[in-house]
Amino acid sequence: MLESAQIIAVGDEVLAGETVNTNGAWMAQFLMTFGIRPSLQYIVPDSLDAIEAAVRRGLVEADLVITIGGLGPTADDRTVEACGRALCRPLTVDEVLLERIRSRHSHTAGWEASARRQARVLEGALLWPNPRGQAPGQAVAEGSGWVILLPGPPREMQAIAETHMGPWLRERSGGTIHRDAYTVFDLGESAVATHLGPLLSGHHPKTGIYAQPGRVDVRIDTDDSAMGRVLRERSRAWVMTQIPAPVYELAGQSREAYLIEWLAEHAMTIAAMESLTGGEILASLISIPGASRAVVGGVVAYTDAVKAQFGVSQAILSNQGAVSAACAEAMAIAIRERLGVDVGISSTGYAGPDGGDEENPVGTFYVAAAGPHGTVVRRRHTPLDRQAVRRVAAHTALSAVWELLKLPTLWQSPRDSQD
Amino acid sequence: MLESAQIIAVGDEVLAGETVNTNGAWMAQFLMTFGIRPSLQYIVPDSLDAIEAAVRRGLVEADLVITIGGLGPTADDRTVEACGRALCRPLTVDEVLLERIRSRHSHTAGWEASARRQARVLEGALLWPNPRGQAPGQAVAEGSGWVILLPGPPREMQAIAETHMGPWLRERSGGTIHRDAYTVFDLGESAVATHLGPLLSGHHPKTGIYAQPGRVDVRIDTDDSAMGRVLRERSRAWVMTQIPAPVYELAGQSREAYLIEWLAEHAMTIAAMESLTGGEILASLISIPGASRAVVGGVVAYTDAVKAQFGVSQAILSNQGAVSAACAEAMAIAIRERLGVDVGISSTGYAGPDGGDEENPVGTFYVAAAGPHGTVVRRRHTPLDRQAVRRVAAHTALSAVWELLKLPTLWQSPRDSQD
Repeated sequence: MLESAQIIAVGDEVLAGETVNTNGAWMAQFLMTFGIRPSLQYIVPDSLDAIEAAVRRGLVEADLVITIGGLGPTADDRTVEACGRALCRPLTVDEVLLERIRSRHSHTAGWEASARRQARVLEGALLWPNPRGQAPGQAVAEGSGWVILLPGPPREMQAIAETHMGPWLRERSGGTIHRDAYTVFDLGESAVATHLGPLLSGHHPKTGIYAQPGRVDVRIDTDDSAMGRVLRERSRAWVMTQIPAPVYELAGQSREAYLIEWLAEHAMTIAAMESLTGGEILASLISIPGASRAVVGGVVAYTDAVKAQFGVSQAILSNQGAVSAACAEAMAIAIRERLGVDVGISSTGYAGPDGGDEENPVGTFYVAAAGPHGTVVRRRHTPLDRQAVRRVAAHTALSAVWELLKLPTLWQSPRDSQD
Repeated sequence: MLESAQIIAVGDEVLAGETVNTNGAWMAQFLMTFGIRPSLQYIVPDSLDAIEAAVRRGLVEADLVITIGGLGPTADDRTVEACGRALCRPLTVDEVLLERIRSRHSHTAGWEASARRQARVLEGALLWPNPRGQAPGQAVAEGSGWVILLPGPPREMQAIAETHMGPWLRERSGGTIHRDAYTVFDLGESAVATHLGPLLSGHHPKTGIYAQPGRVDVRIDTDDSAMGRVLRERSRAWVMTQIPAPVYELAGQSREAYLIEWLAEHAMTIAAMESLTGGEILASLISIPGASRAVVGGVVAYTDAVKAQFGVSQAILSNQGAVSAACAEAMAIAIRERLGVDVGISSTGYAGPDGGDEENPVGTFYVAAAGPHGTVVRRRHTPLDRQAVRRVAAHTALSAVWELLKLPTLWQSPRDSQD
């Protein structure tokens, strides 16, 4: 049964940091869903010796050694040869593969040699066709372990892994790991950690907390056993009752996508007047395919003059100021009326580095959502850098919409904090 | 002299792929600027044995061993202890550091122990203060090599590296590598590669091409020698004369920052009416600190009705359609007039997955820039995914502004392609 793995990213450009090694992270998460835990990851250069040494070491220390990269047609693609050395196994040219590579390319000078090069496989290897490129995946048994070779381009690597390697792993691993993924937008990392309490100790369930600006992801992994099922339900109940903020269970979907789907289903439309966030709320909504079913647009009112031009009263701007609850509310109401939509959103605040005053220091913002039956306004102070403040504000504006429309979250706190 | 390095990222969450190891890539690039080449990178778990083994091996194989992560206050932060073991060196509590950590926190229960934990340093280590957090960097000599410990949060790690480690490395490495960084926004990767021709072969100068959606970065590294200086000038001349598109030399500054600086200096203002890009152009401008000196805001006109409401004539919308050169131009002119700014920008197009027609298939967009003395309109077809199309359009809109205002680029082609 395969339980542990080492992942070897191959390539000078990855080693030198010109390319960030996203493949390693992707593969680690992929393996985790089969209950296979990476014990080490490497980045090695395009060098026969370095690849060979890493593969040899991996075979001693783990059940599965996965190389990613170095399967291309050029002279610095050396992974197949290095694995041949590490495994003392000869290379052969796979004629079917060679024919396939040939059929895809015009025959330019010097090309036949590189086609033959890319058609080399380890003798006796399982071959996994590459639906998005030339180099197939290869899997070779060695003792009780396996060495797996995958190409470096992420789309090719992922396609082979999902199509061929996944089913293959399922038969050879200890069963699937179940992952529950929750997201909290309105609470900080340490607060989430405090409330998760006992879920964070021990290995089963294995709970991870991952903070992004304005957002905390919680992942709870349980195994396939009877105990795993019990722990899964208990963890879920704990999350539902103990986190004092809405918890979202988005299953890979973003809140933006959910919101647009919901609005479209209810034949409702939305628009925004943004100051602090400067277009980010609209951009994140419009990034969703089919956004036009619900989003009509909006206004970026970065100056007081533009706010006034689009319907914020001069009295509010003069008396309460542009960074105030009254202004946020007026902006959301104004854009709702101007564009004739069902829901208006707004943001205003001090992102820094300059601006702010005693009452509203840099990092303070107000967001609002206005609907047919009222408005929701929230104030927050987030002492982060400019980009982070804006991102948190965009998240909080969406939370205000959620509250306004009473959209479902896994668990809704009885009373949301206004700060 | 320090020539080679191994980079060890420490952390279960990095190993399991929950966090992508961007620190490794950043550090590799940082080292390369001092002519120090990474020979291997690892990700190891939060395990004493794994960290110790990697550090020991690194000391045998490289001049510099850099650990990143595992310096926090909790029980699973084990890097200091593991390095102590690998180096057979005791740990001491640094009293100055302890006082600093204490002064930053309220004294809650159980807190003193974690403060003491985080104040542990390797005996005799150079300490590099952390301007953005608690854990300092540590550097310990071992034989002819060094072990360097840095905290895991990227902002903290980078601040220590740039402020303290950089000057320290400069004295101990074989001279600085000079990097010329060029950016091309209006040409694809393969076209850039073709035109760079001979710069891409050989190791000196070392040229890298890095494609992002809508943008190609070119980096040319030369060493400190007399030959390096000659090659540097020759490469620069080659880039200036051979790339058939504007080449930007931004030296770490974004075009957005440059534009806002330039507009503010010339007491000019800018606004946008965005359809396709949905707020991204404004958001990218407003992301620059001090944006309010030049950006007043704008309109996201995602539907025809909103375009009409903000001044695009119904005739254009009916006859030429919303995805047309005429509409892009009308949008830029309308927003310029409505908000009384000097420069108006616009975008309209089909990002997909739906929409488009025979004349303007999905991926087609028009952008425009309108100024006091005329307009610039560009059409492009980019058969990419939704997000990439929008990003390319935002870049191209900025290129249109550049052209309109005749802003400096390293080299301006005699005739810019309209497609």
